Amino acid sequence: MSYPKLVERFAEIYRLDHAITFLSWDQMVMMPEHGNDARSSSIAELAGIRHRMLTAPEVSDWFGESDVQGVNDAATQISLREMRRVWQQATCLPEALVVAKIKAGSTCEHGWRTQRANNDWSGFLKNFLPVVQLAREEATLRQQAATDEKGLNTPYEALLDLHCSGDSQSLIDSVFANLRAELPTLLQNVRDHQSSRNTPVISGEFPITKQKALCEQLMKVLGFDFAGGRLDESMHPFSTGVAGDLRITTRFRTDEFLEALNATAHEVGHASYQGGLPADLEGLPVGDYRNMCIHESQSLLFEKQIFLSRHFMQYFTDVVHQHLPGATAYDASALWSAATHVEPGFIRVEADEVCYPLHVLLRYEIESALINGKIEAQAIPDLWNQKMNDYLGLSTEGNYTNGCLQDIHWTDGAFGYFPSYTVGAVNGAQIFKALCDDNPQWQAKLGSGDLGFVREWLENKIWSRGCQLTSQELMQHATGSTTNTDAYLAHLNARYLEESH
Amino acid sequence: MSYPKLVERFAEIYRLDHAITFLSWDQMVMMPEHGNDARSSSIAELAGIRHRMLTAPEVSDWFGESDVQGVNDAATQISLREMRRVWQQATCLPEALVVAKIKAGSTCEHGWRTQRANNDWSGFLKNFLPVVQLAREEATLRQQAATDEKGLNTPYEALLDLHCSGDSQSLIDSVFANLRAELPTLLQNVRDHQSSRNTPVISGEFPITKQKALCEQLMKVLGFDFAGGRLDESMHPFSTGVAGDLRITTRFRTDEFLEALNATAHEVGHASYQGGLPADLEGLPVGDYRNMCIHESQSLLFEKQIFLSRHFMQYFTDVVHQHLPGATAYDASALWSAATHVEPGFIRVEADEVCYPLHVLLRYEIESALINGKIEAQAIPDLWNQKMNDYLGLSTEGNYTNGCLQDIHWTDGAFGYFPSYTVGAVNGAQIFKALCDDNPQWQAKLGSGDLGFVREWLENKIWSRGCQLTSQELMQHATGSTTNTDAYLAHLNARYLEESH
Repeated sequence: MSYPKLVERFAEIYRLDHAITFLSWDQMVMMPEHGNDARSSSIAELAGIRHRMLTAPEVSDWFGESDVQGVNDAATQISLREMRRVWQQATCLPEALVVAKIKAGSTCEHGWRTQRANNDWSGFLKNFLPVVQLAREEATLRQQAATDEKGLNTPYEALLDLHCSGDSQSLIDSVFANLRAELPTLLQNVRDHQSSRNTPVISGEFPITKQKALCEQLMKVLGFDFAGGRLDESMHPFSTGVAGDLRITTRFRTDEFLEALNATAHEVGHASYQGGLPADLEGLPVGDYRNMCIHESQSLLFEKQIFLSRHFMQYFTDVVHQHLPGATAYDASALWSAATHVEPGFIRVEADEVCYPLHVLLRYEIESALINGKIEAQAIPDLWNQKMNDYLGLSTEGNYTNGCLQDIHWTDGAFGYFPSYTVGAVNGAQIFKALCDDNPQWQAKLGSGDLGFVREWLENKIWSRGCQLTSQELMQHATGSTTNTDAYLAHLNARYLEESH
Repeated sequence: MSYPKLVERFAEIYRLDHAITFLSWDQMVMMPEHGNDARSSSIAELAGIRHRMLTAPEVSDWFGESDVQGVNDAATQISLREMRRVWQQATCLPEALVVAKIKAGSTCEHGWRTQRANNDWSGFLKNFLPVVQLAREEATLRQQAATDEKGLNTPYEALLDLHCSGDSQSLIDSVFANLRAELPTLLQNVRDHQSSRNTPVISGEFPITKQKALCEQLMKVLGFDFAGGRLDESMHPFSTGVAGDLRITTRFRTDEFLEALNATAHEVGHASYQGGLPADLEGLPVGDYRNMCIHESQSLLFEKQIFLSRHFMQYFTDVVHQHLPGATAYDASALWSAATHVEPGFIRVEADEVCYPLHVLLRYEIESALINGKIEAQAIPDLWNQKMNDYLGLSTEGNYTNGCLQDIHWTDGAFGYFPSYTVGAVNGAQIFKALCDDNPQWQAKLGSGDLGFVREWLENKIWSRGCQLTSQELMQHATGSTTNTDAYLAHLNARYLEESH
């Protein structure tokens, strides 16, 4: 009789998460500046209540009773597996470590905001060393606490499990090994190839109200339902919310419009996954999204596979021209060339589709070695410089601001997140290939803005599955094989060297 | 040692209330339509947690210990008095009654939405009778549970205490007795007086973006700080939020702009009170607003005493002309005449300043008699018609839609709220008179848009007092006497018969 109690407790937690989700959205999108202290206190209060609900002694008893009494049907077993994963992740760290981690992370992140601007690596390192030490302790404890029969093979894999659950370090290693072998040469070939073409630079004056209407039209074409969601503006584009109330944001520049459209397409992918999760499992861990490698596959499928395709751009250019009279100078070919221009740079978040995975590869290699104790934090700047040279042909020697100090992730100990960006891109290409194989008319449909087949296929194969399958079961089921770089490398070759799509 | 525990518990409740406040704001202002079920569930979850926090057995113990151990300083005694009031209001009803009340109210309100449109009194009455019965039970229990040394003199006063705490039924009776004696004649005189003047009807096309900028300018003139708040649009204007994050809304029509401005001024009054509450008592009941009669006094002071004054309109007309080119046909005198036009009508929320209190008087007389068992619900339509005839010269015989079915308040048992609208207007006039007596240059200052003196005086006399004084102590302290109709009737006579301000 204890499984229903677990269901009710997780439903309560889900309703609290709803509150935290929308209070956080408001904080980033609507809240005036003086509201921050009260808002942070309120969210912290809710997070504390949530933690106590999840880690209360009776929850442990209920899990025990579920074991003892036996739950025979497979669906309930799987639901319990996912409940246990969430619960175990919440309970396996001693409170003293959690507090020390928050404190060290907060100090490091706070200092980083000025140290980054001041190119101050040694100042940063002083705060960063305790963050690394605590992350290693966390990783070891999480590894020891793992209840999955396969276990976790390295401390780093225990941190990966928080974001990329189900994707082992060995799988991710093999993905990145292929990218390390292929991408630097591919990048050089793409640059040679593009040097002979005429790539326009978008310029002009594009009013934000008109760009917003254009982005909303893109959302409609991509299948977003405004009765169940909205678009707003924020400093950094993001997606959040629940089915029926999906909130995405984008960012506008008045001298350019591709950035806002790219971000919109990306966030529609995230929102579509969130909105397509199984309604009958809402409120249960098994009804949640699978992991960030799958979540990112959906955003990148909408952004890179659809929006950046020649076929869709052919269709959408007319829509652009209808909304932005100042954009009529750019035909579909010019827009596509501008949107797919490749050029190495220092900054990950500004990188194009070919360079981006190399930025992630570099971070993955460094953070996995760091957490598994194979290197120390002092070695990071030299490693960064060496890998930037090897992968992107750029030196960051002495340039910490645009090198190893550029990202916020590590400052508060969020190791194991970076890989999801690129495993997501790889998954996205693999999923899109399977989708197209099932829909031979896909090019004509993208070319006419008819995306119903995309949503229908993804809803069936990915969105509605929630966490019922593990990530690799899901990939196998949807695409016929587990995550591998074949479709991704074929996509990059085709788009950037053959220019056929 | 138990007072600090009460302080911490009320601080936790305050942080939960913050969450409920902003989730509700979002629900009314931002949320897409399909988000409602999940949002309502989340807010209900938080309300349940809040209720359990407030009514937990240890809270009762802490109040007991506070009694036993003695708390000597006056400030703590007053803080405890307000804590106890909140706690007692939350604990004095048996759960079965609360559940029955919510259920009956929900059924009645739901049916009312169509019954009102269909003029269906008898259908409504069937659902309304249990609401009345439960409200009477509630009132009796609340009366019995009252811990204040003065007690509560009637069942109705126990419901009044939820909204107009500290303002007794006898005080409110005496206020309304004066209004009953004076206003019908005043109304007739005003109509005679206005029949000879030329009152323009505002017409034109006033774009919402321009009206919004105009309303924001009005807010700035009234002292609203946009670093600590924002203006949005909603179906019904309202104000909510906390100091540092004050959210007000208004409503726009494209053919008229005075309605949006009036509502904006009104909500700025509410927000200013909320934002001026004592920062050092934030999170304690004693730091909260006093009651709705005081809250409404602040909104009506900003709307009726300031915005609708001839002096301020003289200043603000230039601002209107700057923002709305289509409004230049109306000079200050024309705008003032349009904004102060008096004409009886059926609908309370559309009523002007002279007719509005007569609508409230009618409701007060009916609901107080109903809750105190002097009439039954069946008598309401006839009473409504008779009083509409007596007070406003209009018949509602057979017209339930625009008669006794027009308001939502009674449908879910919210008796005792209506009086705060008019006691608020009376308080507002009385407070404004005291403010002006202390600032002899007030007319010149309003005429130049210089409102610093208003905010300074109100902050000192009203806002910063929180709940440290009872409502009538507060009125006595701020104005030299308890609530009475002298200033209010003088104000109506001066504005509507002398036209000097």
